[in-house]
Amino acid sequence: MKNQTFRMTMLFDFYGELLTERQKEFYQLYYDEDLSLSEIAENYGISRQGVRDVIVRAEAYMTEIEDKTGLVKRFMQFAPHVEAIESAVGEIVQMNHRLFEDKRLAELCDTIGKEAAALKE
Amino acid sequence: MKNQTFRMTMLFDFYGELLTERQKEFYQLYYDEDLSLSEIAENYGISRQGVRDVIVRAEAYMTEIEDKTGLVKRFMQFAPHVEAIESAVGEIVQMNHRLFEDKRLAELCDTIGKEAAALKE
Repeated sequence: MKNQTFRMTMLFDFYGELLTERQKEFYQLYYDEDLSLSEIAENYGISRQGVRDVIVRAEAYMTEIEDKTGLVKRFMQFAPHVEAIESAVGEIVQMNHRLFEDKRLAELCDTIGKEAAALKE
Repeated sequence: MKNQTFRMTMLFDFYGELLTERQKEFYQLYYDEDLSLSEIAENYGISRQGVRDVIVRAEAYMTEIEDKTGLVKRFMQFAPHVEAIESAVGEIVQMNHRLFEDKRLAELCDTIGKEAAALKE
Protein backbone atom coordinates (compact mmCIF):
# COMPACT_ATOMS: atom_id res chain seq x y z
CA MET A 1 0.00 0.00 0.00
CA LYS A 2 2.83 2.41 0.79
CA ASN A 3 3.73 3.02 -2.84
CA GLN A 4 0.74 5.38 -2.81
CA THR A 5 1.88 7.43 0.16
CA PHE A 6 1.65 10.85 -1.47
CA ARG A 7 -1.85 10.23 -2.77
CA MET A 8 -2.92 8.80 0.58
CA THR A 9 -1.48 11.76 2.45
CA MET A 10 -3.46 14.15 0.24
CA LEU A 11 -6.64 12.15 0.70
CA PHE A 12 -6.13 12.13 4.44
CA ASP A 13 -5.43 15.86 4.50
CA PHE A 14 -8.73 16.51 2.74
CA TYR A 15 -11.02 13.81 4.04
CA GLY A 16 -9.33 12.44 7.16
CA GLU A 17 -11.90 14.07 9.43
CA LEU A 18 -14.61 11.98 7.80
CA LEU A 19 -13.01 8.77 9.09
CA THR A 20 -13.72 7.03 12.39
CA GLU A 21 -11.29 7.57 15.27
CA ARG A 22 -9.79 4.12 14.82
CA GLN A 23 -9.36 4.58 11.06
CA LYS A 24 -7.63 7.93 11.66
CA GLU A 25 -5.34 6.41 14.30
CA PHE A 26 -4.21 3.47 12.20
CA TYR A 27 -3.89 5.61 9.09
CA GLN A 28 -1.59 8.05 10.82
CA LEU A 29 0.53 5.36 12.44
CA TYR A 30 0.94 3.65 9.12
CA TYR A 31 1.47 6.62 6.77
CA ASP A 32 2.76 9.43 8.97
CA GLU A 33 4.70 7.53 11.61
CA ASP A 34 5.66 4.77 9.20
CA LEU A 35 4.85 1.85 11.49
CA SER A 36 4.34 -1.52 9.81
CA LEU A 37 0.98 -3.31 9.89
CA SER A 38 2.52 -5.86 12.27
CA GLU A 39 3.79 -3.17 14.64
CA ILE A 40 0.37 -1.51 14.80
CA ALA A 41 -1.27 -4.91 15.28
CA GLU A 42 1.06 -5.70 18.16
CA ASN A 43 0.47 -2.33 19.85
CA TYR A 44 -3.29 -2.75 19.70
CA GLY A 45 -3.42 -6.49 20.40
CA ILE A 46 -5.27 -7.29 17.17
CA SER A 47 -4.31 -9.24 14.04
CA ARG A 48 -2.21 -7.80 11.25
CA GLN A 49 -5.11 -8.52 8.90
CA GLY A 50 -7.44 -6.59 11.20
CA VAL A 51 -5.22 -3.52 10.97
CA ARG A 52 -4.97 -3.92 7.23
CA ASP A 53 -8.76 -4.10 6.88
CA VAL A 54 -9.23 -0.86 8.82
CA ILE A 55 -6.70 1.00 6.67
CA VAL A 56 -7.95 -0.45 3.38
CA ARG A 57 -11.51 0.49 4.27
CA ALA A 58 -10.43 4.04 5.14
CA GLU A 59 -8.59 4.35 1.82
CA ALA A 60 -11.52 2.98 -0.12
CA TYR A 61 -13.90 5.43 1.56
CA MET A 62 -11.71 8.46 0.90
CA THR A 63 -11.02 7.33 -2.66
CA GLU A 64 -14.75 7.00 -3.27
CA ILE A 65 -15.37 10.53 -2.01
CA GLU A 66 -12.52 11.90 -4.13
CA ASP A 67 -13.79 10.07 -7.20
CA LYS A 68 -17.13 11.79 -6.73
CA THR A 69 -16.04 15.30 -5.69
CA GLY A 70 -12.60 15.61 -7.38
CA LEU A 71 -11.56 18.19 -4.78
CA VAL A 72 -7.97 16.97 -4.28
CA LYS A 73 -7.51 17.07 -8.05
CA ARG A 74 -9.01 20.57 -8.19
CA PHE A 75 -6.68 21.84 -5.45
CA MET A 76 -3.64 20.24 -7.06
CA GLN A 77 -4.33 22.01 -10.34
CA PHE A 78 -3.59 25.26 -8.52
CA ALA A 79 0.08 24.43 -7.96
CA PRO A 80 1.40 25.06 -11.50
CA HIS A 81 -0.36 28.45 -11.63
CA VAL A 82 1.15 29.51 -8.33
CA GLU A 83 4.57 28.34 -9.51
CA ALA A 84 4.20 30.32 -12.75
CA ILE A 85 3.39 33.44 -10.72
CA GLU A 86 6.43 32.88 -8.52
CA SER A 87 8.66 32.33 -11.50
CA ALA A 88 7.45 35.50 -13.26
CA VAL A 89 7.78 37.62 -10.17
CA GLY A 90 11.30 36.23 -9.63
CA GLU A 91 12.22 37.45 -13.08
CA ILE A 92 10.77 40.91 -12.35
CA VAL A 93 12.86 41.05 -9.17
CA GLN A 94 15.99 40.31 -11.21
CA MET A 95 15.08 42.94 -13.81
CA ASN A 96 14.50 45.46 -11.07
CA HIS A 97 17.97 44.81 -9.62
CA ARG A 98 19.56 45.07 -13.01
CA LEU A 99 17.62 47.84 -14.72
CA PHE A 100 15.12 49.88 -12.76
CA GLU A 101 16.24 49.84 -9.12
CA ASP A 102 12.77 51.00 -8.12
CA LYS A 103 11.79 50.73 -4.45
CA ARG A 104 8.04 50.57 -5.06
CA LEU A 105 8.48 47.88 -7.69
CA ALA A 106 10.50 45.85 -5.19
CA GLU A 107 7.69 46.19 -2.63
CA LEU A 108 5.07 45.05 -5.13
CA CYS A 109 7.15 42.02 -6.07
CA ASP A 110 7.54 41.22 -2.40
CA THR A 111 3.76 41.39 -1.96
CA ILE A 112 3.15 39.10 -4.90
CA GLY A 113 5.72 36.62 -3.59
CA LYS A 114 4.16 36.55 -0.14
CA GLU A 115 0.61 36.22 -1.42
CA ALA A 116 1.65 33.40 -3.75
CA ALA A 117 3.34 31.64 -0.83
CA ALA A 118 0.12 31.97 1.19
CA LEU A 119 -1.71 30.10 -1.57
CA LYS A 120 0.51 27.09 -0.97
CA GLU A 121 -0.37 26.72 2.71
CA MET B 1 -33.96 28.57 3.37
CA LYS B 2 -33.08 30.77 0.40
CA ASN B 3 -31.38 33.44 2.52
CA GLN B 4 -28.41 31.06 2.53
CA THR B 5 -28.21 30.70 -1.22
CA PHE B 6 -24.52 31.61 -1.60
CA ARG B 7 -23.44 29.19 1.09
CA MET B 8 -25.68 26.48 -0.32
CA THR B 9 -24.32 27.02 -3.83
CA MET B 10 -20.76 26.63 -2.54
CA LEU B 11 -21.66 23.48 -0.61
CA PHE B 12 -23.33 22.05 -3.68
CA ASP B 13 -20.37 22.94 -5.88
CA PHE B 14 -18.06 21.01 -3.54
CA TYR B 15 -20.18 18.17 -2.26
CA GLY B 16 -23.12 17.95 -4.64
CA GLU B 17 -21.83 14.72 -6.18
CA LEU B 18 -22.12 13.04 -2.78
CA LEU B 19 -25.90 13.51 -2.80
CA THR B 20 -28.50 11.11 -4.16
CA GLU B 21 -29.95 11.77 -7.62
CA ARG B 22 -33.20 13.01 -6.13
CA GLN B 23 -31.46 15.31 -3.67
CA LYS B 24 -29.36 16.77 -6.49
CA GLU B 25 -32.41 17.27 -8.67
CA PHE B 26 -34.49 19.07 -6.05
CA TYR B 27 -31.52 21.08 -4.87
CA GLN B 28 -30.82 22.40 -8.34
CA LEU B 29 -34.45 23.18 -9.09
CA TYR B 30 -34.73 25.07 -5.83
CA TYR B 31 -31.41 26.94 -5.74
CA ASP B 32 -30.27 27.18 -9.36
CA GLU B 33 -33.57 27.36 -11.19
CA ASP B 34 -35.28 29.17 -8.36
CA LEU B 35 -38.46 27.09 -8.31
CA SER B 36 -40.53 27.20 -5.13
CA LEU B 37 -41.05 24.13 -2.95
CA SER B 38 -44.68 24.04 -4.11
CA GLU B 39 -43.70 24.17 -7.77
CA ILE B 40 -41.26 21.29 -7.37
CA ALA B 41 -43.87 19.34 -5.38
CA GLU B 42 -46.44 19.83 -8.11
CA ASN B 43 -44.01 18.75 -10.88
CA TYR B 44 -43.11 15.57 -9.03
CA GLY B 45 -46.56 14.79 -7.64
CA ILE B 46 -45.41 14.76 -4.01
CA SER B 47 -46.14 16.98 -1.03
CA ARG B 48 -44.44 20.33 -0.44
CA GLN B 49 -43.22 18.95 2.88
CA GLY B 50 -41.74 15.96 1.07
CA VAL B 51 -39.70 18.24 -1.20
CA ARG B 52 -38.64 20.32 1.78
CA ASP B 53 -37.44 17.21 3.65
CA VAL B 54 -35.27 16.10 0.73
CA ILE B 55 -33.63 19.51 0.44
CA VAL B 56 -33.18 19.97 4.19
CA ARG B 57 -31.58 16.54 4.46
CA ALA B 58 -29.22 17.32 1.57
CA GLU B 59 -28.21 20.60 3.21
CA ALA B 60 -27.68 18.94 6.57
CA TYR B 61 -25.50 16.26 5.01
CA MET B 62 -23.32 18.71 3.11
CA THR B 63 -23.08 21.01 6.13
CA GLU B 64 -21.95 18.08 8.26
CA ILE B 65 -19.21 17.21 5.78
CA GLU B 66 -18.08 20.82 5.56
CA ASP B 67 -18.03 21.13 9.36
CA LYS B 68 -15.68 18.17 9.45
CA THR B 69 -13.42 18.87 6.47
CA GLY B 70 -13.56 22.70 6.22
CA LEU B 71 -12.72 22.50 2.52
CA VAL B 72 -15.09 25.24 1.32
CA LYS B 73 -13.65 27.53 3.98
CA ARG B 74 -10.12 26.61 2.93
CA PHE B 75 -10.84 27.35 -0.74
CA MET B 76 -12.52 30.62 0.07
CA GLN B 77 -9.48 31.82 1.98
CA PHE B 78 -7.61 31.80 -1.32
CA ALA B 79 -9.64 34.65 -2.81
CA PRO B 80 -8.09 37.58 -0.91
CA HIS B 81 -4.58 36.36 -1.78
CA VAL B 82 -5.41 36.13 -5.46
CA GLU B 83 -6.98 39.60 -5.33
CA ALA B 84 -3.86 41.00 -3.65
CA ILE B 85 -1.71 39.54 -6.44
CA GLU B 86 -3.98 41.04 -9.08
CA SER B 87 -3.93 44.42 -7.38
CA ALA B 88 -0.12 44.44 -7.09
CA VAL B 89 0.39 43.38 -10.68
CA GLY B 90 -2.07 46.05 -11.79
CA GLU B 91 0.08 48.65 -10.10
CA ILE B 92 3.21 47.28 -11.79
CA VAL B 93 1.46 47.53 -15.17
CA GLN B 94 0.71 51.20 -14.45
CA MET B 95 4.29 51.86 -13.36
CA ASN B 96 5.56 50.22 -16.51
CA HIS B 97 3.38 52.46 -18.69
CA ARG B 98 4.48 55.53 -16.83
CA LEU B 99 8.15 54.88 -16.09
CA PHE B 100 9.88 51.90 -17.62
CA GLU B 101 8.07 51.09 -20.87
CA ASP B 102 9.71 47.66 -20.83
CA LYS B 103 8.32 45.00 -23.14
CA ARG B 104 9.53 42.02 -21.10
CA LEU B 105 8.11 43.51 -17.90
CA ALA B 106 4.75 43.88 -19.65
CA GLU B 107 4.86 40.22 -20.68
CA LEU B 108 5.65 39.08 -17.16
CA CYS B 109 2.77 41.14 -15.76
CA ASP B 110 0.50 39.62 -18.35
CA THR B 111 1.60 36.13 -17.29
CA ILE B 112 0.96 36.87 -13.63
CA GLY B 113 -2.47 38.29 -14.44
CA LYS B 114 -3.45 35.25 -16.47
CA GLU B 115 -2.17 32.76 -13.91
CA ALA B 116 -3.99 34.61 -11.12
CA ALA B 117 -7.19 34.51 -13.18
CA ALA B 118 -6.76 30.75 -13.63
CA LEU B 119 -6.73 30.38 -9.85
CA LYS B 120 -10.24 31.78 -9.70
CA GLU B 121 -11.77 29.20 -12.02
